[in-house]
Amino acid sequence: MTSTRQSYNQELEALRQEISDMGTRVEQAIDQAVASLVARDFELARSVMAGDDYIDDMENEIEDKCIVLIARQQPLARDLRIISTGLKITTDLERVGDHAFDIAKITLSIGNEPLIKPLIDIPRMSAMAQAMLKDSLVAYINLDITLAEQVCADDDAVDDLYAHVLRELLTCMITDPTTINQATNLLFVARYLERVADHATNIAEWVIYLVTGHRMRKN
Amino acid sequence: MTSTRQSYNQELEALRQEISDMGTRVEQAIDQAVASLVARDFELARSVMAGDDYIDDMENEIEDKCIVLIARQQPLARDLRIISTGLKITTDLERVGDHAFDIAKITLSIGNEPLIKPLIDIPRMSAMAQAMLKDSLVAYINLDITLAEQVCADDDAVDDLYAHVLRELLTCMITDPTTINQATNLLFVARYLERVADHATNIAEWVIYLVTGHRMRKN
Repeated sequence: MTSTRQSYNQELEALRQEISDMGTRVEQAIDQAVASLVARDFELARSVMAGDDYIDDMENEIEDKCIVLIARQQPLARDLRIISTGLKITTDLERVGDHAFDIAKITLSIGNEPLIKPLIDIPRMSAMAQAMLKDSLVAYINLDITLAEQVCADDDAVDDLYAHVLRELLTCMITDPTTINQATNLLFVARYLERVADHATNIAEWVIYLVTGHRMRKN
Repeated sequence: MTSTRQSYNQELEALRQEISDMGTRVEQAIDQAVASLVARDFELARSVMAGDDYIDDMENEIEDKCIVLIARQQPLARDLRIISTGLKITTDLERVGDHAFDIAKITLSIGNEPLIKPLIDIPRMSAMAQAMLKDSLVAYINLDITLAEQVCADDDAVDDLYAHVLRELLTCMITDPTTINQATNLLFVARYLERVADHATNIAEWVIYLVTGHRMRKN
Protein backbone atom coordinates (compact mmCIF):
# COMPACT_ATOMS: atom_id res chain seq x y z
CA MET A 1 0.00 0.00 0.00
CA THR A 2 2.82 2.38 0.89
CA SER A 3 4.58 1.61 -2.35
CA THR A 4 1.35 2.16 -4.30
CA ARG A 5 0.98 5.50 -2.55
CA GLN A 6 4.60 6.29 -3.31
CA SER A 7 4.22 5.41 -6.97
CA TYR A 8 1.07 7.55 -7.11
CA ASN A 9 2.90 10.52 -5.66
CA GLN A 10 5.67 9.98 -8.16
CA GLU A 11 3.16 9.89 -11.00
CA LEU A 12 1.59 13.11 -9.75
CA GLU A 13 5.01 14.77 -9.55
CA ALA A 14 5.91 13.49 -13.02
CA LEU A 15 2.66 14.91 -14.34
CA ARG A 16 3.35 18.36 -12.93
CA GLN A 17 6.87 18.25 -14.38
CA GLU A 18 5.51 17.34 -17.81
CA ILE A 19 3.05 20.24 -17.69
CA SER A 20 5.91 22.54 -16.77
CA ASP A 21 7.99 21.16 -19.67
CA MET A 22 5.11 21.75 -22.06
CA GLY A 23 4.97 25.33 -20.77
CA THR A 24 8.67 25.84 -21.46
CA ARG A 25 8.20 24.42 -24.92
CA VAL A 26 5.33 26.72 -25.95
CA GLU A 27 7.07 29.73 -24.40
CA GLN A 28 10.07 28.98 -26.63
CA ALA A 29 7.74 28.56 -29.62
CA ILE A 30 6.35 32.07 -29.07
CA ASP A 31 9.85 33.45 -28.56
CA GLN A 32 11.11 31.86 -31.78
CA ALA A 33 8.01 32.81 -33.78
CA VAL A 34 8.46 36.49 -32.88
CA ALA A 35 12.24 36.21 -33.44
CA SER A 36 11.56 34.77 -36.90
CA LEU A 37 9.38 37.77 -37.67
CA VAL A 38 11.95 40.30 -36.46
CA ALA A 39 14.90 38.61 -38.19
CA ARG A 40 13.01 37.46 -41.33
CA ASP A 41 14.28 34.00 -40.54
CA PHE A 42 12.06 31.74 -42.66
CA GLU A 43 13.93 28.61 -41.60
CA LEU A 44 13.14 29.39 -37.97
CA ALA A 45 9.50 30.14 -38.84
CA ARG A 46 9.19 26.78 -40.58
CA SER A 47 10.74 24.98 -37.64
CA VAL A 48 8.21 26.63 -35.27
CA MET A 49 5.38 25.50 -37.54
CA ALA A 50 6.76 21.96 -37.76
CA GLY A 51 7.12 21.86 -33.95
CA ASP A 52 3.40 22.41 -33.39
CA ASP A 53 2.61 18.72 -33.91
CA TYR A 54 4.99 17.84 -31.08
CA ILE A 55 3.17 20.31 -28.79
CA ASP A 56 -0.17 18.74 -29.74
CA ASP A 57 1.28 15.32 -28.90
CA MET A 58 2.47 16.60 -25.51
CA GLU A 59 -1.06 17.84 -24.78
CA ASN A 60 -2.60 14.49 -25.70
CA GLU A 61 -0.11 12.52 -23.61
CA ILE A 62 -0.59 14.71 -20.55
CA GLU A 63 -4.37 14.54 -20.88
CA ASP A 64 -4.35 10.78 -21.15
CA LYS A 65 -2.21 10.60 -18.01
CA CYS A 66 -4.52 12.95 -16.11
CA ILE A 67 -7.61 10.94 -16.99
CA VAL A 68 -5.97 7.61 -16.16
CA LEU A 69 -4.70 9.01 -12.85
CA ILE A 70 -8.16 10.25 -11.90
CA ALA A 71 -9.86 7.03 -12.93
CA ARG A 72 -7.36 4.66 -11.33
CA GLN A 73 -6.46 6.47 -8.13
CA GLN A 74 -9.69 8.22 -7.13
CA PRO A 75 -7.60 11.08 -5.76
CA LEU A 76 -8.77 13.16 -2.83
CA ALA A 77 -10.07 16.70 -3.17
CA ARG A 78 -6.80 18.60 -3.42
CA ASP A 79 -5.00 16.09 -5.66
CA LEU A 80 -8.11 15.88 -7.80
CA ARG A 81 -7.95 19.65 -8.23
CA ILE A 82 -4.23 19.50 -9.09
CA ILE A 83 -4.93 16.93 -11.82
CA SER A 84 -8.05 18.56 -13.22
CA THR A 85 -6.26 21.91 -13.26
CA GLY A 86 -3.52 20.17 -15.24
CA LEU A 87 -6.14 19.20 -17.81
CA LYS A 88 -7.23 22.81 -18.19
CA ILE A 89 -3.71 24.21 -18.27
CA THR A 90 -2.64 21.97 -21.15
CA THR A 91 -5.56 23.27 -23.22
CA ASP A 92 -4.36 26.83 -22.66
CA LEU A 93 -0.78 25.83 -23.48
CA GLU A 94 -1.86 24.10 -26.67
CA ARG A 95 -3.62 27.30 -27.78
CA VAL A 96 -0.44 29.27 -27.10
CA GLY A 97 1.34 26.79 -29.35
CA ASP A 98 -1.28 27.45 -32.05
CA HIS A 99 -0.62 31.18 -31.78
CA ALA A 100 3.13 30.56 -32.22
CA PHE A 101 2.22 28.62 -35.36
CA ASP A 102 0.00 31.48 -36.57
CA ILE A 103 2.73 34.09 -35.98
CA ALA A 104 5.37 31.98 -37.75
CA LYS A 105 2.97 31.65 -40.70
CA ILE A 106 2.72 35.46 -40.85
CA THR A 107 6.54 35.65 -40.98
CA LEU A 108 6.39 33.58 -44.17
CA SER A 109 3.47 35.59 -45.50
CA ILE A 110 5.28 38.94 -45.04
CA GLY A 111 8.34 37.38 -46.62
CA ASN A 112 11.11 39.73 -47.71
CA GLU A 113 9.06 42.90 -48.16
CA PRO A 114 10.46 45.83 -46.13
CA LEU A 115 8.89 46.24 -42.70
CA ILE A 116 6.59 49.25 -42.48
CA LYS A 117 8.14 50.17 -39.14
CA PRO A 118 10.83 48.81 -36.82
CA LEU A 119 9.30 46.12 -34.62
CA ILE A 120 9.66 47.35 -31.03
CA ASP A 121 6.33 46.99 -29.28
CA ILE A 122 5.56 43.53 -30.67
CA PRO A 123 8.75 41.98 -29.20
CA ARG A 124 7.97 43.84 -25.96
CA MET A 125 4.46 42.38 -25.86
CA SER A 126 5.95 38.99 -26.58
CA ALA A 127 8.47 39.28 -23.72
CA MET A 128 5.71 40.34 -21.32
CA ALA A 129 3.40 37.51 -22.37
CA GLN A 130 6.24 34.97 -22.10
CA ALA A 131 7.13 36.18 -18.60
CA MET A 132 3.48 35.85 -17.57
CA LEU A 133 3.37 32.34 -18.98
CA LYS A 134 6.52 31.32 -17.12
CA ASP A 135 5.25 32.85 -13.87
CA SER A 136 1.84 31.19 -14.20
CA LEU A 137 3.52 27.77 -14.47
CA VAL A 138 5.85 28.45 -11.53
CA ALA A 139 2.73 29.43 -9.60
CA TYR A 140 1.15 26.08 -10.57
CA ILE A 141 4.19 24.02 -9.60
CA ASN A 142 4.66 25.82 -6.24
CA LEU A 143 0.94 26.47 -5.65
CA ASP A 144 2.00 30.11 -5.23
CA ILE A 145 -1.17 32.19 -5.09
CA THR A 146 0.66 35.52 -4.71
CA LEU A 147 2.53 34.92 -7.95
CA ALA A 148 -0.71 33.83 -9.64
CA GLU A 149 -2.38 37.08 -8.58
CA GLN A 150 0.61 39.01 -9.94
CA VAL A 151 0.15 37.34 -13.34
CA CYS A 152 -3.52 38.38 -13.40
CA ALA A 153 -2.49 41.96 -12.58
CA ASP A 154 0.22 41.97 -15.29
CA ASP A 155 -2.38 41.32 -17.97
CA ASP A 156 -3.50 44.97 -17.89
CA ALA A 157 -0.10 46.18 -19.11
CA VAL A 158 -0.26 43.80 -22.09
CA ASP A 159 -3.79 44.96 -22.90
CA ASP A 160 -2.62 48.59 -22.81
CA LEU A 161 0.31 47.85 -25.10
CA TYR A 162 -2.02 45.97 -27.46
CA ALA A 163 -4.35 48.98 -27.67
CA HIS A 164 -1.34 51.18 -28.38
CA VAL A 165 -0.04 48.90 -31.17
CA LEU A 166 -3.53 48.71 -32.65
CA ARG A 167 -3.84 52.51 -32.81
CA GLU A 168 -0.38 52.83 -34.32
CA LEU A 169 -1.01 50.25 -37.02
CA LEU A 170 -4.36 51.80 -37.93
CA THR A 171 -2.64 55.18 -38.24
CA CYS A 172 0.00 53.59 -40.50
CA MET A 173 -2.73 52.16 -42.74
CA ILE A 174 -4.64 55.43 -42.94
CA THR A 175 -1.53 57.48 -43.67
CA ASP A 176 -0.19 55.09 -46.26
CA PRO A 177 -2.64 52.57 -47.74
CA THR A 178 0.22 50.60 -49.32
CA THR A 179 0.99 49.37 -45.79
CA ILE A 180 -2.45 47.83 -45.28
CA ASN A 181 -1.56 44.26 -46.11
CA GLN A 182 1.41 44.07 -43.80
CA ALA A 183 -0.19 46.21 -41.08
CA THR A 184 -3.13 43.79 -41.01
CA ASN A 185 -0.71 40.92 -40.57
CA LEU A 186 1.11 42.71 -37.74
CA LEU A 187 -2.25 43.54 -36.17
CA PHE A 188 -3.01 39.82 -36.02
CA VAL A 189 0.41 39.16 -34.46
CA ALA A 190 -0.37 41.71 -31.74
CA ARG A 191 -3.78 40.15 -31.20
CA TYR A 192 -2.23 36.66 -30.86
CA LEU A 193 0.26 37.92 -28.28
CA GLU A 194 -2.54 39.58 -26.35
CA ARG A 195 -4.29 36.19 -26.39
CA VAL A 196 -1.12 34.48 -25.11
CA ALA A 197 -1.20 36.82 -22.11
CA ASP A 198 -4.89 35.91 -21.66
CA HIS A 199 -3.98 32.22 -21.61
CA ALA A 200 -1.30 32.89 -18.96
CA THR A 201 -3.99 34.72 -16.98
CA ASN A 202 -6.33 31.74 -17.38
CA ILE A 203 -3.59 29.46 -16.01
CA ALA A 204 -3.03 31.81 -13.06
CA GLU A 205 -6.78 31.79 -12.40
CA TRP A 206 -6.79 27.98 -12.43
CA VAL A 207 -4.01 28.05 -9.81
CA ILE A 208 -6.06 30.40 -7.63
CA TYR A 209 -9.01 28.01 -8.00
CA LEU A 210 -6.78 25.08 -7.18
CA VAL A 211 -5.51 26.65 -3.95
CA THR A 212 -8.61 28.49 -2.75
CA GLY A 213 -11.42 26.48 -4.38
CA HIS A 214 -12.81 29.79 -5.70
CA ARG A 215 -13.11 30.44 -9.39
CA MET A 216 -12.30 33.85 -10.79
CA ARG A 217 -14.46 35.46 -13.42
CA LYS A 218 -13.04 35.25 -16.92
CA ASN A 219 -13.11 38.15 -19.46
CA MET B 1 -25.63 -2.23 -7.17
CA THR B 2 -28.18 -2.14 -9.99
CA SER B 3 -29.61 1.10 -8.68
CA THR B 4 -26.12 2.59 -8.35
CA ARG B 5 -25.43 1.57 -11.92
CA GLN B 6 -28.77 3.04 -12.97
CA SER B 7 -28.08 6.33 -11.23
CA TYR B 8 -24.63 6.40 -12.85
CA ASN B 9 -26.13 5.93 -16.29
CA GLN B 10 -28.61 8.68 -15.54
CA GLU B 11 -25.81 11.01 -14.48
CA LEU B 12 -23.91 10.22 -17.67
CA GLU B 13 -27.01 10.93 -19.76
CA ALA B 14 -27.64 14.17 -17.85
CA LEU B 15 -24.06 15.20 -18.48
CA ARG B 16 -24.36 14.67 -22.22
CA GLN B 17 -27.63 16.61 -22.23
CA GLU B 18 -26.01 19.52 -20.40
CA ILE B 19 -23.16 19.60 -22.91
CA SER B 20 -25.71 19.65 -25.71
CA ASP B 21 -27.58 22.51 -23.96
CA MET B 22 -24.36 24.47 -23.62
CA GLY B 23 -23.81 23.95 -27.35
CA THR B 24 -27.27 25.31 -28.15
CA ARG B 25 -26.59 28.29 -25.92
CA VAL B 26 -23.28 29.28 -27.55
CA GLU B 27 -24.70 28.69 -31.01
CA GLN B 28 -27.47 31.18 -30.16
CA ALA B 29 -24.89 33.60 -28.79
CA ILE B 30 -23.02 33.58 -32.11
CA ASP B 31 -26.28 33.93 -34.01
CA GLN B 32 -27.36 36.91 -31.90
CA ALA B 33 -23.93 38.54 -31.96
CA VAL B 34 -23.90 38.52 -35.76
CA ALA B 35 -27.57 39.60 -35.85
CA SER B 36 -26.70 42.53 -33.57
CA LEU B 37 -23.97 43.55 -36.02
CA VAL B 38 -26.23 43.32 -39.07
CA ALA B 39 -29.17 45.11 -37.40
CA ARG B 40 -27.10 47.60 -35.34
CA ASP B 41 -29.01 46.32 -32.34
CA PHE B 42 -26.95 47.54 -29.38
CA GLU B 43 -29.42 46.14 -26.86
CA LEU B 44 -28.97 42.68 -28.34
CA ALA B 45 -25.17 43.11 -28.40
CA ARG B 46 -25.17 44.03 -24.71
CA SER B 47 -27.36 41.06 -23.86
CA VAL B 48 -24.92 38.71 -25.67
CA MET B 49 -22.04 40.22 -23.69
CA ALA B 50 -23.93 39.90 -20.41
CA GLY B 51 -24.80 36.28 -21.23
CA ASP B 52 -21.15 35.25 -21.42
CA ASP B 53 -20.90 34.85 -17.64
CA TYR B 54 -23.73 32.32 -17.76
CA ILE B 55 -21.85 30.34 -20.42
CA ASP B 56 -18.70 30.38 -18.26
CA ASP B 57 -20.80 29.09 -15.35
CA MET B 58 -22.19 26.29 -17.52
CA GLU B 59 -18.63 25.29 -18.43
CA ASN B 60 -17.54 25.21 -14.79
CA GLU B 61 -20.55 23.17 -13.69
CA ILE B 62 -20.12 20.61 -16.46
CA GLU B 63 -16.42 20.30 -15.71
CA ASP B 64 -17.02 19.75 -12.04
CA LYS B 65 -19.53 17.04 -12.86
CA CYS B 66 -17.14 15.34 -15.28
CA ILE B 67 -14.33 15.26 -12.72
CA VAL B 68 -16.58 14.02 -9.92
CA LEU B 69 -18.02 11.33 -12.19
CA ILE B 70 -14.55 10.11 -13.18
CA ALA B 71 -13.28 10.16 -9.60
CA ARG B 72 -16.30 8.48 -8.00
CA GLN B 73 -17.32 5.96 -10.61
CA GLN B 74 -14.01 4.83 -12.11
CA PRO B 75 -15.78 4.46 -15.45
CA LEU B 76 -14.67 1.86 -17.98
CA ALA B 77 -12.79 2.74 -21.15
CA ARG B 78 -15.65 3.89 -23.36
CA ASP B 79 -17.51 5.82 -20.64
CA LEU B 80 -14.23 7.35 -19.55
CA ARG B 81 -13.72 8.56 -23.10
CA ILE B 82 -17.27 9.97 -23.24
CA ILE B 83 -16.65 11.96 -20.05
CA SER B 84 -13.14 13.14 -20.89
CA THR B 85 -14.36 14.16 -24.34
CA GLY B 86 -17.06 16.16 -22.55
CA LEU B 87 -14.32 18.03 -20.70
CA LYS B 88 -12.63 18.97 -23.96
CA ILE B 89 -15.85 19.91 -25.74
CA THR B 90 -16.87 22.39 -23.04
CA THR B 91 -13.54 24.17 -23.45
CA ASP B 92 -14.21 24.57 -27.17
CA LEU B 93 -17.77 25.74 -26.47
CA GLU B 94 -16.57 28.28 -23.94
CA ARG B 95 -14.19 29.72 -26.55
CA VAL B 96 -17.08 29.98 -29.00
CA GLY B 97 -18.93 31.94 -26.30
CA ASP B 98 -15.91 34.25 -26.00
CA HIS B 99 -16.01 34.87 -29.75
CA ALA B 100 -19.72 35.77 -29.52
CA PHE B 101 -18.73 38.26 -26.81
CA ASP B 102 -15.94 39.68 -29.01
CA ILE B 103 -18.28 40.08 -32.00
CA ALA B 104 -20.96 41.78 -29.89
CA LYS B 105 -18.29 44.16 -28.60
CA ILE B 106 -17.43 45.05 -32.20
CA THR B 107 -21.12 45.86 -32.85
CA LEU B 108 -20.89 48.47 -30.09
CA SER B 109 -17.53 49.71 -31.35
CA ILE B 110 -18.82 50.25 -34.91
CA GLY B 111 -21.88 51.95 -33.44
CA ASN B 112 -24.05 53.92 -35.81
CA GLU B 113 -21.50 54.69 -38.52
CA PRO B 114 -22.68 53.57 -41.97
CA LEU B 115 -21.51 50.10 -42.96
CA ILE B 116 -18.79 50.15 -45.62
CA LYS B 117 -20.60 47.37 -47.47
CA PRO B 118 -23.73 45.29 -47.04
CA LEU B 119 -22.96 42.34 -44.77
CA ILE B 120 -23.59 39.22 -46.82
CA ASP B 121 -20.60 36.90 -46.48
CA ILE B 122 -20.22 37.38 -42.71
CA PRO B 123 -23.78 36.17 -41.96
CA ARG B 124 -23.14 33.31 -44.39
CA MET B 125 -19.94 32.34 -42.57
CA SER B 126 -21.85 32.55 -39.31
CA ALA B 127 -24.64 30.28 -40.57
CA MET B 128 -22.09 27.74 -41.80
CA ALA B 129 -20.15 27.78 -38.52
CA GLN B 130 -23.36 27.45 -36.51
CA ALA B 131 -24.50 24.47 -38.59
CA MET B 132 -21.11 22.81 -38.05
CA LEU B 133 -21.38 23.43 -34.31
CA LYS B 134 -24.87 21.93 -34.15
CA ASP B 135 -23.81 18.90 -36.21
CA SER B 136 -20.70 18.31 -34.10
CA LEU B 137 -22.85 18.12 -30.95
CA VAL B 138 -25.42 15.83 -32.58
CA ALA B 139 -22.45 13.65 -33.58
CA TYR B 140 -21.31 13.63 -29.92
CA ILE B 141 -24.74 12.75 -28.54
CA ASN B 142 -25.36 9.98 -31.11
CA LEU B 143 -21.68 8.95 -31.41
CA ASP B 144 -22.18 9.48 -35.15
CA ILE B 145 -18.78 9.26 -36.77
CA THR B 146 -20.09 9.88 -40.32
CA LEU B 147 -21.59 13.20 -39.23
CA ALA B 148 -18.37 14.07 -37.37
CA GLU B 149 -16.36 13.45 -40.54
CA GLN B 150 -18.80 15.64 -42.47
CA VAL B 151 -18.16 18.51 -40.02
CA CYS B 152 -14.40 18.19 -40.54
CA ALA B 153 -14.94 18.30 -44.32
CA ASP B 154 -17.24 21.36 -44.05
CA ASP B 155 -14.44 23.40 -42.49
CA ASP B 156 -12.77 23.90 -45.88
CA ALA B 157 -15.75 25.88 -47.20
CA VAL B 158 -15.59 28.23 -44.20
CA ASP B 159 -11.84 28.68 -44.69
CA ASP B 160 -12.42 29.54 -48.35
CA LEU B 161 -15.10 32.07 -47.48
CA TYR B 162 -12.83 33.59 -44.84
CA ALA B 163 -10.03 34.02 -47.39
CA HIS B 164 -12.54 35.67 -49.74
CA VAL B 165 -13.82 38.10 -47.04
CA LEU B 166 -10.23 38.91 -46.08
CA ARG B 167 -9.30 39.82 -49.66
CA GLU B 168 -12.45 41.89 -50.08
CA LEU B 169 -11.88 43.87 -46.89
CA LEU B 170 -8.24 44.53 -47.73
CA THR B 171 -9.35 45.82 -51.14
CA CYS B 172 -11.89 48.10 -49.41
CA MET B 173 -9.16 49.52 -47.17
CA ILE B 174 -6.74 50.08 -50.03
CA THR B 175 -9.37 51.71 -52.24
CA ASP B 176 -10.73 53.94 -49.52
CA PRO B 177 -8.55 54.44 -46.43
CA THR B 178 -11.46 56.01 -44.51
CA THR B 179 -12.86 52.46 -44.27
CA ILE B 180 -9.81 51.10 -42.46
CA ASN B 181 -11.14 51.28 -38.93
CA GLN B 182 -14.38 49.49 -39.67
CA ALA B 183 -12.82 47.08 -42.15
CA THR B 184 -10.34 46.02 -39.46
CA ASN B 185 -13.22 45.37 -37.10
CA LEU B 186 -15.07 43.31 -39.71
CA LEU B 187 -11.86 41.45 -40.45
CA PHE B 188 -11.74 40.40 -36.79
CA VAL B 189 -15.39 39.29 -36.95
CA ALA B 190 -14.57 37.08 -39.95
CA ARG B 191 -11.55 35.68 -38.13
CA TYR B 192 -13.67 34.87 -35.04
CA LEU B 193 -16.24 33.05 -37.18
CA GLU B 194 -13.49 31.10 -38.86
CA ARG B 195 -12.32 30.13 -35.35
CA VAL B 196 -15.86 29.06 -34.40
CA ALA B 197 -15.79 26.63 -37.33
CA ASP B 198 -12.38 25.41 -36.10
CA HIS B 199 -13.87 24.73 -32.66
CA ALA B 200 -16.72 22.76 -34.26
CA THR B 201 -14.06 20.81 -36.14
CA ASN B 202 -12.20 20.18 -32.87
CA ILE B 203 -15.41 18.83 -31.33
CA ALA B 204 -15.98 16.57 -34.35
CA GLU B 205 -12.40 15.32 -34.00
CA TRP B 206 -13.00 14.54 -30.31
CA VAL B 207 -16.05 12.51 -31.34
CA ILE B 208 -13.96 10.54 -33.85
CA TYR B 209 -11.40 9.91 -31.09
CA LEU B 210 -14.17 8.86 -28.73
CA VAL B 211 -15.58 6.30 -31.16
CA THR B 212 -12.41 5.01 -32.82
CA GLY B 213 -9.77 5.70 -30.16
CA HIS B 214 -7.71 7.44 -32.85
CA ARG B 215 -6.83 11.08 -32.58
CA MET B 216 -6.89 13.25 -35.66
CA ARG B 217 -4.18 15.77 -36.35
CA LYS B 218 -5.13 19.35 -35.50
CA ASN B 219 -4.29 22.38 -37.71
